[in-house]
Amino acid sequence: MSERKVRVIVNGYGVIGKRIADAVVAQSDMELVGIADVVIDWRVKVAAEKGYAIFASTPEALQAMQEAGLHPVGLLNDTLTQVDIVADATPKKVASANLETYRAAGVKSVFQGGEKHSLTGHSFVAQANYATALGRDTTRVVSCNTTSIVRTLGALQQAGLLKKARGVLIRRATDPWESDHTGVMNTVVPETAIPSHQGPDAQTVLPDLDVVTLAVVAAHTNSHLHAWSVELTRSATKAEVLAAFQAAPRIAFLSAGEGIVALNSTVEMMSDLGRPRGDMWEVGLWEDSLTVKGNEVFYNYQVYNQAIVVPETIDAIRALTEVELDGAQSIAKTDRALGLMREFTPRRDLSAITERQ
Amino acid sequence: MSERKVRVIVNGYGVIGKRIADAVVAQSDMELVGIADVVIDWRVKVAAEKGYAIFASTPEALQAMQEAGLHPVGLLNDTLTQVDIVADATPKKVASANLETYRAAGVKSVFQGGEKHSLTGHSFVAQANYATALGRDTTRVVSCNTTSIVRTLGALQQAGLLKKARGVLIRRATDPWESDHTGVMNTVVPETAIPSHQGPDAQTVLPDLDVVTLAVVAAHTNSHLHAWSVELTRSATKAEVLAAFQAAPRIAFLSAGEGIVALNSTVEMMSDLGRPRGDMWEVGLWEDSLTVKGNEVFYNYQVYNQAIVVPETIDAIRALTEVELDGAQSIAKTDRALGLMREFTPRRDLSAITERQ
Repeated sequence: MSERKVRVIVNGYGVIGKRIADAVVAQSDMELVGIADVVIDWRVKVAAEKGYAIFASTPEALQAMQEAGLHPVGLLNDTLTQVDIVADATPKKVASANLETYRAAGVKSVFQGGEKHSLTGHSFVAQANYATALGRDTTRVVSCNTTSIVRTLGALQQAGLLKKARGVLIRRATDPWESDHTGVMNTVVPETAIPSHQGPDAQTVLPDLDVVTLAVVAAHTNSHLHAWSVELTRSATKAEVLAAFQAAPRIAFLSAGEGIVALNSTVEMMSDLGRPRGDMWEVGLWEDSLTVKGNEVFYNYQVYNQAIVVPETIDAIRALTEVELDGAQSIAKTDRALGLMREFTPRRDLSAITERQ
Repeated sequence: MSERKVRVIVNGYGVIGKRIADAVVAQSDMELVGIADVVIDWRVKVAAEKGYAIFASTPEALQAMQEAGLHPVGLLNDTLTQVDIVADATPKKVASANLETYRAAGVKSVFQGGEKHSLTGHSFVAQANYATALGRDTTRVVSCNTTSIVRTLGALQQAGLLKKARGVLIRRATDPWESDHTGVMNTVVPETAIPSHQGPDAQTVLPDLDVVTLAVVAAHTNSHLHAWSVELTRSATKAEVLAAFQAAPRIAFLSAGEGIVALNSTVEMMSDLGRPRGDMWEVGLWEDSLTVKGNEVFYNYQVYNQAIVVPETIDAIRALTEVELDGAQSIAKTDRALGLMREFTPRRDLSAITERQ
């Protein structure tokens, strides 16, 4: 284990990359060497404003950045030998070409869920398989929805409660700041293939999951909603199921009874909590509507797609670089540094929850 | 069985009532005596324009209608003895008070799904329980979503394939013409109770259904989308499941491969088919994405909430008045008169469908 800080560069300063950069800065055992991109729009200019060292991912970008007065430090490729790991958050398909470059430079790399499992041969969710990522040269943090599935079904599996799970994902149309006509208005678009890819994708992390997902896109931009029907290995109480979720990291309960009645109310609460960009890194699971019927449990949760994978990426950096060998320790460090919560609002003792079904 | 036409009056000329009125006019064995309402806004004025006899549901409405130049025929209550049956499509909770009036006048009545099962003691979906409605004095046509559940799960049950069904309903925010701030924008609102009422409501028609529903409201106005995970009694082929749906009435297949990719494309197709108000009376079930995995089947379908209960209401009128004793005959008459289709676009033979899972 290295005494010095892990030196990280973030390639791709978009929705995920900019959050990873901030999260790296927040870790006491990591150093952000800089961020790299091919564009010179407002996002990169804000990064420069924040004092982040700017690198160009291509020679063309280097020249454009120089002309724009961004004072780039240099080319990403020339810097690779000076860093321990690249957090690659470049767009889907760009990333796969980058892996060879990283490997040639002898630098480790973490990719995002837009890439295929086959690219890295390892897919990562900290609570599920931190140990198998230790010392690897590369891994892939699975996508936002898949991360949420592994966290929640993994929690039920860990408690010995999971038999099989069937879920419906009501996805956001596009990201909130977009205005490029890629969204949908006044409709719901069911995916043309069943199962949707998230179920099989979760199996790249937890191969034994019996999970099937259906996905639709709806006319909103504020994150995703999941609706699950889960068969348990046995009859259980609501308190047992909630305890299983609470025993796992990065799941926090939402309460309709306290006014968190929809995706947008959660978003507003995150802002009120003073979180950077209003991010919710946790799976926000509605506690009051969760219903157990015999050996089945039904529940809804919210996935804040812009942020949920960020703590996982931080843990992946620790696992690959082996600055921390214990997954639980890494998760605790990350969550403390970022400010993840186990409960958003003070709540009563779980033992007080009686069956209401 | 009566030689003369069944004399029907429609009380409540809103989204459902206006459609029932038109559907009654289209039946050769029914006569629309008129429509009754308490308001005198554009809807009732259009009814007058169409030549429908207008009745007032209250003395106050009668005076207002006279003053507005609508030439009302008279009070609804004074007309009850001259009709065989009232199709009551008044707002939720108004209807329940009306039943006593209808009973006192010795007139039969059909209510809509906003009312409770306990009001009438009988809930109706033509294909499921036409026979038990014969000669009753009143019944309730279940709501749009419940009707769709009974049609589809009833079809699987009829084929001996249904074990249990778990469904997620992605409901419309409000009706397309509304602008009264009752909708939702840019969010998804999960219902605070699981299961949602539609599953238990379907059991009022098919008591043996093992069904659980979760419902959310999304930011669109064009009808509802359902996503179902159904466990079958045995492994089956996709062709068998499609055949079970095709054997039941009022289910028609949609094809993403032919460009019907979302709720709004279906709505546009209905308009292009020249349907009144662009109505879809059938459950529109996506054929291409329907997936069978062993003894499970997963599928999406669309419920056009404004129209799906209209043919059921027509059949309920026949059942109560006993002008037709055979449910299948009534369904056939209704569907022929309204123009229901078994397929919206020409499709290949079911036997040509091979397994693609």
